[in-house]
Amino acid sequence: MPTLSPPPQSLMKPMDFPQKLLMGPGPSNCPPRVLNASALPLLGHLHPEFTQIMDEVKAGIQYAFQTKNQWTVCVSGTGHGAMEAACTNLLEPSETVLVCENGLWGQRFADMCTRNGAVVQKIIKPMGQVFTLQDVEAGLQQHKPVLVFVTHGESSGSTLQPLEGLGQLCHKYNSLLLVDSVAACGGVPLFVDDWEIDAIYTGAQKVLSAPPGASPVSFSERAKNKVLNRKTPIRSYYFDMTHLANYWGCDGSARRYHHTGPISSVYAIREGLARLAEEGLEKSWETHRKCAEMLWEGAEKLGLELLVQEKANRLPCVTGIKVPEGVNWKDVSDYAMKTYKVEISGGLGAQAGKIWRVGIMGYNATPENVQKVLRALDEGLKSVRG
Amino acid sequence: MPTLSPPPQSLMKPMDFPQKLLMGPGPSNCPPRVLNASALPLLGHLHPEFTQIMDEVKAGIQYAFQTKNQWTVCVSGTGHGAMEAACTNLLEPSETVLVCENGLWGQRFADMCTRNGAVVQKIIKPMGQVFTLQDVEAGLQQHKPVLVFVTHGESSGSTLQPLEGLGQLCHKYNSLLLVDSVAACGGVPLFVDDWEIDAIYTGAQKVLSAPPGASPVSFSERAKNKVLNRKTPIRSYYFDMTHLANYWGCDGSARRYHHTGPISSVYAIREGLARLAEEGLEKSWETHRKCAEMLWEGAEKLGLELLVQEKANRLPCVTGIKVPEGVNWKDVSDYAMKTYKVEISGGLGAQAGKIWRVGIMGYNATPENVQKVLRALDEGLKSVRG
Repeated sequence: MPTLSPPPQSLMKPMDFPQKLLMGPGPSNCPPRVLNASALPLLGHLHPEFTQIMDEVKAGIQYAFQTKNQWTVCVSGTGHGAMEAACTNLLEPSETVLVCENGLWGQRFADMCTRNGAVVQKIIKPMGQVFTLQDVEAGLQQHKPVLVFVTHGESSGSTLQPLEGLGQLCHKYNSLLLVDSVAACGGVPLFVDDWEIDAIYTGAQKVLSAPPGASPVSFSERAKNKVLNRKTPIRSYYFDMTHLANYWGCDGSARRYHHTGPISSVYAIREGLARLAEEGLEKSWETHRKCAEMLWEGAEKLGLELLVQEKANRLPCVTGIKVPEGVNWKDVSDYAMKTYKVEISGGLGAQAGKIWRVGIMGYNATPENVQKVLRALDEGLKSVRG
Repeated sequence: MPTLSPPPQSLMKPMDFPQKLLMGPGPSNCPPRVLNASALPLLGHLHPEFTQIMDEVKAGIQYAFQTKNQWTVCVSGTGHGAMEAACTNLLEPSETVLVCENGLWGQRFADMCTRNGAVVQKIIKPMGQVFTLQDVEAGLQQHKPVLVFVTHGESSGSTLQPLEGLGQLCHKYNSLLLVDSVAACGGVPLFVDDWEIDAIYTGAQKVLSAPPGASPVSFSERAKNKVLNRKTPIRSYYFDMTHLANYWGCDGSARRYHHTGPISSVYAIREGLARLAEEGLEKSWETHRKCAEMLWEGAEKLGLELLVQEKANRLPCVTGIKVPEGVNWKDVSDYAMKTYKVEISGGLGAQAGKIWRVGIMGYNATPENVQKVLRALDEGLKSVRG
């Protein structure tokens, strides 16, 4: 037998880390009930007690999305896993997808589509701007895509994309509508069925206030039929919705073994969804709105400008605040972390170094937390300006 | 605004479920320290305290695999996610893979390869049998694959595949060796570097005694070079090892945002790995061996026959026990669950209904648990025979 390498010394001491207030674009903090659920003893991933919990999760997602879609499940991965599931199920090689790109998420989805062999066409707006129905209609007419992708809450540009009318428009052109609502679902009005959204996904770690690890996706009848009528196999086994729909009890057949679900992550998102259900969507939307307005007004009082001019297009869950001339964003952010253990994030891509991003999501959406961010920003700015 | 659907009533009551002893092929139970780690407050997925924990996880995986491979990470998914990561990174369309299939896992990997456009060739043995070097060499000569897949611990057939010499053999034919060690790593000797294994993965929920959700994978220099010299993009963004290696600090560059890691699952597997490091691999291997032998002898004393004849080819972590003529496996299994809350699983595929499968993994590998299983089997058999 070969000689054993010794165990690493770094594993011989306990993990030790500070408690932080995560006011960036995610992950956000989880309430104790969600963390406690993560620590519940494991059940078998096909035991009746666990499939009951899965049914509750499914009902909770249907509520959060306001949909009756049968194909409503969690994929066994983070939000990017849900995005990849949407891509790999809905697109076949050589099919055209129209990506509305006004920030990182359109870029990311386009990357996934290219890897999957789809033809990517884009309509592009700068970060901080949203798409009109006319923008999308022009793209539909020009490119005749099978699928249109939009980001509901663009956390990189801090925009809220209006969705009303988009589904109907896509259907007029025989296209499906896919919505990324990772940074929006639960924090702003969303009516998947009424708005005729064909496929949608979100993450656990934003408004649902659960750790990343199990991510909700939902497919309309139209989207489901597209998947069931594919000419080529879904390239991913792991994210194959026909299998996942069975495992999640969405196809009327007995559940068959597909893969072992992320049991503890499912417990956690169940509690996050229960929290949302108890609070009620209308209350949650209102809370996010109120906290965001407090942040927006407070930032303006500090002499700061918001990235998104039009108030209706501002995402309450993530706000982009312009970094004033002569200020290094990181100095202020470091001050907030050092002094208050508060996370204030920076920009991405074209907005790197130009904005701060403040997240107000789920359990973290309280006036006290907003005040803490404003205070940290105020003091941080004063400290760097000397 | 459309009318809101009400929140589901099922989410208005707490989760309530029994504590079970999970002695099937997984998930196995987690020790309190692992469950407690799952419940620790979230950190940002790029915060220094979290990347420190990731480094510890990486060191722990290198220890468990006995490798110095730079490209050693967790994928953000369950064991099937790790399997898909291995497939999508290592194979390009039209490349030939040789799958050694002696149970479910070879079938599963072949399915993934086909979806990824690879050409699958197989050498097949019945469940319960393993491959010789001669078997594999014949396949290498005939099919000239770029990759050979074997399952170290075949949990469906309860076999332990001998791995010594396989890597060297594959390299003689200019092929890479990929090993699925989900149901074996930590429970039996494994020397990835000495045995010249090019890519390997395992799961969290077996011997590592952590919830499924973050799964170790490791790539040798040879495998890494194959990935870096691909002519076609890796089809999966989510599992793209070139990105994951960066996020996990394996490429010497500053970590860039790729996706939000499953933070709580990483805490948990860190503790599972710490537990293994504290116990030491040699002790862990010995414990699994002793408990398995107790099970094997105990089952034979009850007049039961094991699926795998050759003792050296028996997987200590999962044992297949033949169901005697005239006995319905499920009646006995139901008895064990009802009377002792002990899970004893059934067979899969060609062995469905024909065997029970008993898992002895990690935290569950104790003589007391083995005795409990034997008692439940004994009483269960008596109860169904009347």
